[in-house]
Amino acid sequence: MLSEFALIRKYFDRPAPSAALGVGDDAALLRPDAGMELAVSTDLLLEGRHFRAGTDARKLGHKALAVNLSDMAAMGAAPRWVTLALALPAADEAWLEGFAKGFFALARRFGVELIGGDTTRGPLSICVTILGEVPRGLALFRAGAAPGDDIWVSGELGGAALGLAQPENAAAARRLDEPEPRVDLCERLRGLASAAIDVSDGFAQDLGHILERSGVGAVVHCEQLPKFAGADLQQALSGGDDYELVFAARQDRRAEIEALSKELGLALSRVGSMQKGEPKLQLLGGDGAAIVPARGFDHFAA
Amino acid sequence: MLSEFALIRKYFDRPAPSAALGVGDDAALLRPDAGMELAVSTDLLLEGRHFRAGTDARKLGHKALAVNLSDMAAMGAAPRWVTLALALPAADEAWLEGFAKGFFALARRFGVELIGGDTTRGPLSICVTILGEVPRGLALFRAGAAPGDDIWVSGELGGAALGLAQPENAAAARRLDEPEPRVDLCERLRGLASAAIDVSDGFAQDLGHILERSGVGAVVHCEQLPKFAGADLQQALSGGDDYELVFAARQDRRAEIEALSKELGLALSRVGSMQKGEPKLQLLGGDGAAIVPARGFDHFAA
Repeated sequence: MLSEFALIRKYFDRPAPSAALGVGDDAALLRPDAGMELAVSTDLLLEGRHFRAGTDARKLGHKALAVNLSDMAAMGAAPRWVTLALALPAADEAWLEGFAKGFFALARRFGVELIGGDTTRGPLSICVTILGEVPRGLALFRAGAAPGDDIWVSGELGGAALGLAQPENAAAARRLDEPEPRVDLCERLRGLASAAIDVSDGFAQDLGHILERSGVGAVVHCEQLPKFAGADLQQALSGGDDYELVFAARQDRRAEIEALSKELGLALSRVGSMQKGEPKLQLLGGDGAAIVPARGFDHFAA
Repeated sequence: MLSEFALIRKYFDRPAPSAALGVGDDAALLRPDAGMELAVSTDLLLEGRHFRAGTDARKLGHKALAVNLSDMAAMGAAPRWVTLALALPAADEAWLEGFAKGFFALARRFGVELIGGDTTRGPLSICVTILGEVPRGLALFRAGAAPGDDIWVSGELGGAALGLAQPENAAAARRLDEPEPRVDLCERLRGLASAAIDVSDGFAQDLGHILERSGVGAVVHCEQLPKFAGADLQQALSGGDDYELVFAARQDRRAEIEALSKELGLALSRVGSMQKGEPKLQLLGGDGAAIVPARGFDHFAA
């Protein structure tokens, strides 16, 4: 059997040409570009909590990186480098090969380099830390929304929740297992959106974070929410793991956003607006009646 | 019970004045100083593997950060920022309070800021990613050692292994549970050491990484190894978790290193020298006979 060191080298020691030093020393060394701010985020994925036992290793490799790319997208940052810490029940080469395939396929698409990590034996868990760059002053915060701003959402909501409920629905299962981070959209939202977040815990809950940080309320017209084919309204409102972007923008930017949607071939739906007052979210049905969302996902809730 | 978000805020949302944006958005934002390289490293600690079930939370908070500070020390990098991903079996406030106390006490000592993280429910595991800065061109690599260089080691070896074998030995147990990362030493080794590594897997194995990367052999005189009081030679050679620094330096730097030892009040012991040839480590006893070290620690080995 290959030792830990040999396994790491075989599957994870890939060239990182933009790093001054990549995998294999006590730390990686990076030279961030002058004038850029560095965005840093970390995500921990556990078997049985964030993915089912027995989930295909290639899909896991994709998803572990995708959720972190999505955090960069929500900041308007271009992803550059990642570290990977992996606990595995056994040094299973087939698993490592599959995981590396999914991980590096996505990394290559977006020019992201693996610069370091750690492996150990234990219950399957995956911790990815990502570093990205954004020109100074152009990052997208949760706190930037103002009363009157439109609320927009990319793509479609509820697909991952549908995939969880109906694993036999291949299109929906793909949304859950192999989400598409909105990396291309994010760079175009710099200077255009006033606030942004990605939908990891559910649309209503994640929008709620923007409201709290920005100190504004919001009205959302539920019939305008872009629902994944077959998903119901509650799945669109409260389903996690969609990794679409929810963002705010001034009303006078509507034409630019609609043009951007056409250019990227990505639906961008205007679903409501920010309001003066308490950070409360009002969800309205087509008849104007209030809708109550199911609870968002709390990783510590029973 | 406090929700996940409230718990995170209560224990981990501390000010990060040197970050452009700290905890609470999709990512943190940093502005690395111009002319500096950024060192990045990540470590994953699991219950039952890296620490005993029931280990005091405050000590765990210390150790989780200490092992990462040690990676920065081994690169000659000044630690600046960390992210923390935590899986916990339950949202146990007393545990979180203890962990935060140990973590932040050490962070404050070295001016390190927690800038982001992730928490979830699961088997206790702790993933810390650390970012540090080192002036361009002055990082300490594993690959820099040359034949003829002296081999030095800081402090004392084998204390953590002794603490594992004899938990009732308070001084040794403290070495295991609350290691002292050699942050102060590392900045002084820039431009002085030719290669460095920290002792996490055991002196012989970690020195072996320097030999491999540098393409040199080494002779170590075992009677010159600084042993922790009560530790035997095998504990000093193969015990992990000591977090001392092993470094190489040209022979003409001996006086500087001895002066540095006095100035810092930290033992720096010259234990051998690098040799031309294969990356093989020869361990010699006082009588000149070869000594065979016990195996180093492999996180995947049975």
